[in-house]
Amino acid sequence: MEAYLDNSATTKVSERVMEAVLAAMTDYYGNPSAMHSMGVRAENKVREARELLARLMKVGEKEIYFTSGGTEANNMALIGAAMANRRAGNRILTTQIEHASVSNTMAYLKEQGFDIVALPVDSYGQLQMQALREAMTEDTILVSVMYVNNEIGAVEPIEEINHVIRAVNPSVAFHVDAIQAFGKYKIYPKRLGIDLLSVSGHKLHAPKGVGFLYKNDHVKVKPILFGGGQQDGLRSGTLNVPGIVGLAVAAEESYTDFDEKQKRLYNLKELFVTGIQKIEGTKINGYPGRESAPHIVSVSFDGVRSEVLLHVLEEQEVYVSAGSACSSHKASISPTFKALGLEKKSLDATLRFSFSTFTTEQEICSALEALRETLPVLRKVTGR
Amino acid sequence: MEAYLDNSATTKVSERVMEAVLAAMTDYYGNPSAMHSMGVRAENKVREARELLARLMKVGEKEIYFTSGGTEANNMALIGAAMANRRAGNRILTTQIEHASVSNTMAYLKEQGFDIVALPVDSYGQLQMQALREAMTEDTILVSVMYVNNEIGAVEPIEEINHVIRAVNPSVAFHVDAIQAFGKYKIYPKRLGIDLLSVSGHKLHAPKGVGFLYKNDHVKVKPILFGGGQQDGLRSGTLNVPGIVGLAVAAEESYTDFDEKQKRLYNLKELFVTGIQKIEGTKINGYPGRESAPHIVSVSFDGVRSEVLLHVLEEQEVYVSAGSACSSHKASISPTFKALGLEKKSLDATLRFSFSTFTTEQEICSALEALRETLPVLRKVTGR
Repeated sequence: MEAYLDNSATTKVSERVMEAVLAAMTDYYGNPSAMHSMGVRAENKVREARELLARLMKVGEKEIYFTSGGTEANNMALIGAAMANRRAGNRILTTQIEHASVSNTMAYLKEQGFDIVALPVDSYGQLQMQALREAMTEDTILVSVMYVNNEIGAVEPIEEINHVIRAVNPSVAFHVDAIQAFGKYKIYPKRLGIDLLSVSGHKLHAPKGVGFLYKNDHVKVKPILFGGGQQDGLRSGTLNVPGIVGLAVAAEESYTDFDEKQKRLYNLKELFVTGIQKIEGTKINGYPGRESAPHIVSVSFDGVRSEVLLHVLEEQEVYVSAGSACSSHKASISPTFKALGLEKKSLDATLRFSFSTFTTEQEICSALEALRETLPVLRKVTGR
Repeated sequence: MEAYLDNSATTKVSERVMEAVLAAMTDYYGNPSAMHSMGVRAENKVREARELLARLMKVGEKEIYFTSGGTEANNMALIGAAMANRRAGNRILTTQIEHASVSNTMAYLKEQGFDIVALPVDSYGQLQMQALREAMTEDTILVSVMYVNNEIGAVEPIEEINHVIRAVNPSVAFHVDAIQAFGKYKIYPKRLGIDLLSVSGHKLHAPKGVGFLYKNDHVKVKPILFGGGQQDGLRSGTLNVPGIVGLAVAAEESYTDFDEKQKRLYNLKELFVTGIQKIEGTKINGYPGRESAPHIVSVSFDGVRSEVLLHVLEEQEVYVSAGSACSSHKASISPTFKALGLEKKSLDATLRFSFSTFTTEQEICSALEALRETLPVLRKVTGR
């Protein structure tokens, strides 16, 4: 039986989202910037989407900026905030386990003369708070920490981080990459002190090509794309109406029976983790239970290479990732694994299993069965 | 009868495009960066789209970079080429009638220290070649001229411009904003000497939120978005598979019976222009015939304000633009109109009527009828 356990790479679009996307492509297809009623109809749909997202997060609707996805949201937040606040200081803090759309944007900012400090994590992927305390300075203008790590599901102590950094510089801009977290955790940016929050649609059953950035009204950000002045001039370009309405429907679906869904995901995770723990020569990276995200489990396997195991599983219609699938193909060693201090033998012997609300117990069982059957044979063959 | 004559703002998604988008959202929904077969299937669809577009334009498939739309393609081309070629010179040429996604990106580059020269056009919107000859220098690193102007449909002499600029600096990067031209003209970048060409999907019956940049393999461009290294590291971010396959289908549809479709559009234009010329107190801006684009007609009306006329037409289900609808709502005076030297009374008394392959003769007739009925009444009321 097919088991799609790569939901942190991307998800299937839901039925209701699909219907909303379709309607936007053919029914209210006007340009939301147009002055006539066909434009206004499309604009209203965008406004409704913005209002819904704002309501779910308890923020202002004008604080939502739609982007082409998580990568652009992260770039817009980091480059935008760094450039807008340059006069206040030059230092930017982040972690050693960020997604490439953060870490490579930081590399760009370093080229631009910013002082970038990537903080260490412990073996569970938790930010080392002492290191943060030591690194935080008055001239630190921006701090970026992910909510849920994409490779092992670690959940960072966002609220605590906020207290630590604000104690030193109350006006620091705090960015949180919530691309793996939104829809899995109820996130209230204002309560947590988050100034900038990135979300991607296709991680939660909306289409690829859409995401958004929450930006606290008081935080200064410069645009990174220039043009017709849409979205208060901060993100020019014709609004992706089908994507935006799809994202709103997906978010609404995620928030319907939220706790129940989260519980169900944790149950799936428990089922999977329990199964894995019974298989010899496996090790779960990060916390195996409720201390980490409900939908991501990272497993290292003794005596097999992740790429080989991935393809053998694939033959049995079990789809998973080696490390993170978000970067392009190459099975290079993940910086996150290095930061976690994974044993050398595990660096290229680790797979990520990730779930969504569409995932069934049967899929979990299929994956476990495939692993139980495959691993002994594979270990024999490779002789590792 | 409803007449949607705002196709240069955006178009309705075609049936076949819609089917392709749907399939991508549910059938091959994998992440094209994933290593397993569901990723590979999605990746293959993206490759097929890239190959098709490359074939239509007779360029290499690796020269196509997908973006979130025309605005991003223009930003990527201009900022990317300017930053990558900074050592070779500081001067950038453009025209006074570019779309905001070019002109405002130029304003940003000016802030970054580049020397931006915006060249004048004649009253038909044609670039003044003598001005180009005088402005072009050896240290000019980038020239950006649109193919078809979005407000009056002027077609720029791209081939001639290429000769003029290459004679002075053979290695200048030549960018062409083809957002209003692609699918209306067969454009072969290599033949025309175009190094960078921007295209938007939603102008030709593909969904909003997708576009592409053609980049000649030899031309250096720095990325403006950083992340997972997709698309050769030049445009990171999970590929918008539904949008991309939709764009490819839309392009293929445009190129099917291309000449016939172009001819049909010119016939619609002729029908409309002839009708307009019979209405008192009207003036067509730019060339009325085949010297300008087949799908855009700009008309100035004596004695009425464009915004008022637009809304009166809208009440009769005739949808058009005041100037360009691509910028956000505000009915500000178009820099293009100023550059064309439009009479003062016409600056806020001009509407754009734009067609697509979906436009019917009936729609043209409805619009003309609405104008014939409305204008005398309106002029009487406003007393202008």
